[in-house]
Parts: sequence; structure tokens; C-alpha cells
Amino acid sequence: MTLTVELGHRSYPVMVGEGLIRSAGARLKRLGFASPPIVVTNRTVLGLHGKELFGSLESAFGACPVITIGDGERFKNHETLIRIYNGLFRSRADRRSWVVAFGGGVVGDIAGYAAATFMRGIPYASIPTTLLAQVDSAIGGKVGLNVRQGKNLIGAFHQPSAVLSDTGLLRTMPARELAAGMFEVIKSGAIRSEPLISYLEKKLSVCMECRPAALDHVVIECARIKAEVVSGDETEEGPRMVLNYGHTVGHALEAATRYRRFRHGEAVGWGMIAAVGFGRELGLLTAREAGRLVRLIHAVEHLPSLEGVRLEDVWRALRRDKKFRGGRIRMVLLPKLGTTEILPGIDPRHLKRFLRSFLQSGGDIGI
Amino acid sequence: MTLTVELGHRSYPVMVGEGLIRSAGARLKRLGFASPPIVVTNRTVLGLHGKELFGSLESAFGACPVITIGDGERFKNHETLIRIYNGLFRSRADRRSWVVAFGGGVVGDIAGYAAATFMRGIPYASIPTTLLAQVDSAIGGKVGLNVRQGKNLIGAFHQPSAVLSDTGLLRTMPARELAAGMFEVIKSGAIRSEPLISYLEKKLSVCMECRPAALDHVVIECARIKAEVVSGDETEEGPRMVLNYGHTVGHALEAATRYRRFRHGEAVGWGMIAAVGFGRELGLLTAREAGRLVRLIHAVEHLPSLEGVRLEDVWRALRRDKKFRGGRIRMVLLPKLGTTEILPGIDPRHLKRFLRSFLQSGGDIGI
Repeated sequence: MTLTVELGHRSYPVMVGEGLIRSAGARLKRLGFASPPIVVTNRTVLGLHGKELFGSLESAFGACPVITIGDGERFKNHETLIRIYNGLFRSRADRRSWVVAFGGGVVGDIAGYAAATFMRGIPYASIPTTLLAQVDSAIGGKVGLNVRQGKNLIGAFHQPSAVLSDTGLLRTMPARELAAGMFEVIKSGAIRSEPLISYLEKKLSVCMECRPAALDHVVIECARIKAEVVSGDETEEGPRMVLNYGHTVGHALEAATRYRRFRHGEAVGWGMIAAVGFGRELGLLTAREAGRLVRLIHAVEHLPSLEGVRLEDVWRALRRDKKFRGGRIRMVLLPKLGTTEILPGIDPRHLKRFLRSFLQSGGDIGI
Repeated sequence: MTLTVELGHRSYPVMVGEGLIRSAGARLKRLGFASPPIVVTNRTVLGLHGKELFGSLESAFGACPVITIGDGERFKNHETLIRIYNGLFRSRADRRSWVVAFGGGVVGDIAGYAAATFMRGIPYASIPTTLLAQVDSAIGGKVGLNVRQGKNLIGAFHQPSAVLSDTGLLRTMPARELAAGMFEVIKSGAIRSEPLISYLEKKLSVCMECRPAALDHVVIECARIKAEVVSGDETEEGPRMVLNYGHTVGHALEAATRYRRFRHGEAVGWGMIAAVGFGRELGLLTAREAGRLVRLIHAVEHLPSLEGVRLEDVWRALRRDKKFRGGRIRMVLLPKLGTTEILPGIDPRHLKRFLRSFLQSGGDIGI
């Protein structure tokens, strides 16, 4: 299955399917790449799936240099970036070279950023190996890294030349990471596709068991949604902002717990529940729809508890959020499942009051 | 005098004139900037011209934070970049912030790159304080930094929102740096404007004395040429490549002498002489025109000698140049003064033979 992210002369295909990496070399060759790519990955992914990928790439292009980086969010920093640059120079990369980012969100973000800035930009293809990366981070060209002041604060927009999502790779994912990705799947449905929510209500458990047909459907649907939103708004804070549903509070929960308690997806899970509850206070979403979404989120996994999360810490993190404008908050909310509305003028005191009771009740929004 | 770099919705004005920085604040405000910029500069520039600029900026915007970096090419590195990022965070910069790059090429390149990558890109305005920056590097959006593997190897294209070139600032430039900039002025004439060459033949010495009228004319002409070329080809290796006249050999001379003997402009001076000599061997340029250009270059200053520069070192550096393609060399040459031709298929052995005798003769091309 191939979708296209439509961005004029920067359009690119997103291919989804089981076993795709076994034909990755031939597929990338057909897109016009001729020389061997330089592959950026981590040791975990290399150990699990390296043989298959390199078999395919090398039969199409010959020997491919590889640059390995540490596995985990804490490696998404300037030190790793310079390690990648040095690897590129060691591989004698020049302006005509290209990169394959082979891994989860961290590899995709930092390898993509290295490609964006090496000799003012060389192409890269993304082969995401986690659910989160396949449904979200690999599509759309947001690349970057973390600094001590916060996550993703340094970065660029650099669209990949192709995204190859092999859903077969997801079978080796730890359950908790798969779950974390599933919250972004739910987000995609919540903002743009009631049928996807409805599908998940029936098929969540077969998805979590990584049955290919179910996962393929879910990844394709999310890729389609992400591609559509990105096509409409490559870099701006306009329509693309809907992808941040659940992220305002989610990011703040992550920061307030110093990125230790929640995986990003889990924080987004809680963030969506908060957004549903807050939306209800503003008269959005029926009790029935709100209940469907909240039940689906809780069905994915037992979310790490909100106990002991301090309102002051959440609030401080929120105030640093880019979506604060002139004291008023912009939030993406759902008038109904599958449809979004950007509310620009939310009263911070109202949100703070809501969050106080949200945290006190342990995330129970009374639905 | 205001010119426009035409790049669709990224078009921007280039203003040239004596005393411009005294109205910089008001001019930038008229372009739509509202909040105080964060100014990136170095201590030398700050000491010489800081008072004037800050007086103007602060009366338009209120207090402006300042980030100072080291003065010199060796500070154009990742360490300085991170220093700028930290300064931006300390100044509580967010996505709506903007930067003023106030200094020569180093400040412009690295502050522009910081702006290109901070929160995926914030705007910047450039106030170049050297001749080289006013006629060349501040226009066109090439930003970046050096790594140990070479100069400008990490970077981005990020167009400024405005360029303000106050020619009055050039009066405080050391003579050798002014001369280095003058070689890029000659390059601009050589590739696009015989009248500019002709003007310099008459007015070189008044320019070198920084007489305002003469310098204004020269800076405007060069800015116009650079703006035209960049408008036609923002990022590609097409027409924009003509700006590299004299740079193939120039860069190689710089690298072969480890960036210690020549200033960039001086190396370009020798590079242009080499290009004239080599072009003559290919039947380009009349002896009369070649003589005019070479005499003009030598009239700027006594170029640092080529003595002891080893062909092997120059050749090794050339082979790393991005313009080597599949063993053949692309070079920009002049069929006649003010007109360029890109020759894609130059035989490396021919060029090497020429360079051997060029170095042996100490840069005498027999004209």
C-alpha cells in the first residue's frame, strides 16, 4: 500500500506493508537513488532487523556504511548529532550522499536532522521500526533533537524522500512501547476518523497481538491522516496543530514528572482524557462519545498513575508551552469524534481549575 | 537605497547606505517586527558600533538582550552555536522571537544558522559590518558553521527577513580585511558587470579609503548582482554556482595552507588569477581583458605569496571539493568580462598541469 504526502516538488511516498524491508533496496532504487546509502540506526534495531535490511540494501546498492547511535531518548542530543556527522565524513559522504534512518522516533528525528544540516541538506529515507514512528514521527519532516532546556527545541523541517513502514517489524516491540504508539493511533482517529476509533473498539486486542492485517489497516489509516494534515500545512501552526490533540497537557505531564514516569504516548493518553474532560466543561462532545474515547484509551494499557503529580509542576511546564500566546491558551478540542476545533482563547484560570480536580481525582473525569 | 531579493513569499529587502544603523530600529519596525530582537554580535563590533545600534533598536523596541561570541573564523563552530542557543533560552526566546546578526561573515553565518534551527526556525535580520559580508555573505541565506573536517560543511538555507548594510561601518575595518572584501567585489564585477570592473579601475583607491559615495556604489552594485543570482536559484547548484568564480582554486589554496596564510578573499584573488590563466588556455577571455582583471586584483593589495605552496596539497584539497563530479571538474570561467560559462567537463590532468606551472611561477600567468 502506497500513499503520497503531497508537497509539490517535495512530495514523497509512504509505503506500508508486512515484509517491506526485504524489498527496501529495490524500492529505493526505483525512486532514483543510485549510490549506497549511509544507514543510521541503533544496536537494538541492528541486532533485530539489520540482517534483513542490509541484505536488501546491499543487493541493490552494494556495501552500505552504517552509523550506530545509542538506544533511547537520552541520546537525542548534540553529542549524538556530532557522532553522526563524524560517521558521515568517515564514510566520505558528500552532497550527493543520502541517509537511511532505520529505527524508532529518536533515530528518525536525529538522523533526519543530520541529513537536513549536512552540507546544507542531503536526502534521507525513513524506515521506521516502532508503531509510534510508523504512524506519526516518520511522516511530516519534523526533525530535531533535545537540549537541556527541553525536548525538540532545536530542529528543522526536512521532508524524507520516502517512508517505508514494515509492519512486520512491530512484532519485536516491547508491549509497553507498542501501547505507547497505540495512543497516537487513537489520537489520529479522535481528530480525523470516527471509523478508526470504531475499528479499534473491535480490534484493539488483535492489534496489540500484532496481527498483520489489523496492524496494516491501522498504520495505513494513521499514515493517511498524517499525510493529509501535513500536505495541507507543511510547517505552520495552522491545521497541522490538530496533530497536537492531547499534547498540551501530555507534554506538561511528561515535563512535570521529568520524563521518567510516562512514555510520551502514555502522557498523550492522559492528555487526551484531560482534553475530553475539559472539552465537556466547554460543552463539547456528548457523554457517550467522551465515554467511548476514554474507555478505548484505558483499554490499551493500565496507564501509569497520576498520583503525586503536582499541579504547580504541570502548570509551570504548561506556561513554557509554545501554544501559550499572550496569556491565553490555544487548545485543540473535539466537538465530536473525528472532528477538531482549535480554541484560541482559553482562560488559563479555567484550565488550571480543571487540572486541579483532574489530578486530585487521579484522572477520573466522571464519565 | 533598497533592493529586493525576489524569492516569492520569502522575498526581503537589502538596504544600503551610510548611517543606516542609526535608523535600524525604525526600519525593522516598519517591516513588521514588534518585540525586541535578540542581538548576536562579537565584542569588537559591540565596542565599535554597539552604542549606535542599541540606541536605535532600543528606542524602537525597548531593551534588547545581547549574545556575544568570539571574534574570528575559529569561533564558527558547534561550541559557539550552543552558546548562542543557551543565550536564546536565557533571553526566554520562543517561536515568536527574532534575531539580529550584527557583525561580519562569522556572526552572520552562525547567528543565521542558530535562527534557522532554534525551535525549527525563527526569523533573523542581518546587519553586516564588513565589506565581505555586505557584498556577499549576508545576502542569500547560506548559513552554517565549520567542523574539523572543513569549512561550512554543516549548514542550512535560511533567508534573512532584511539586510541592512551601513557602509559607514566599513571605515573602522582593518585595511587587510577591507582588501579581502574587495576581491569579492571584483568577483561580482567579473561575473556580471564589466561596468563595475571599469568603475573599480578608476575608483579603487577612493574605495579603499572608504569614501562613502564610492563605497555605496560598489556595495549596491554587488548586492544587486548577488540578489539577482540568488533570486534565480535559491539553493541549487545551477546559476548560483557562478558566485563561485575563483573559489575552486581559492578554497584549495586556503586548505593547502591550513587557512593560515590567506584570508578568504585573498585566496579568491589568487583563485581568480588562476581561473583567468586557465581560461586563457581554453581560449576564453582576450589578453587585454585578462590583463585588466589581473592588474585590478594586484592593485588591491600585495597578495600573500604562493611560495612553498605544494601542488600535492592543493590537489588533495581540490579533490575534496563538492564540485568534483565523477572525476571531471566543473569550473566557472569567463568567456569575457562580466559573463560566465560553467564548464562541466574539465580534464583534471589539464588543470593539474596548469596549476603546477601556476605555482612554480609564483602566480605569474604571463599576462
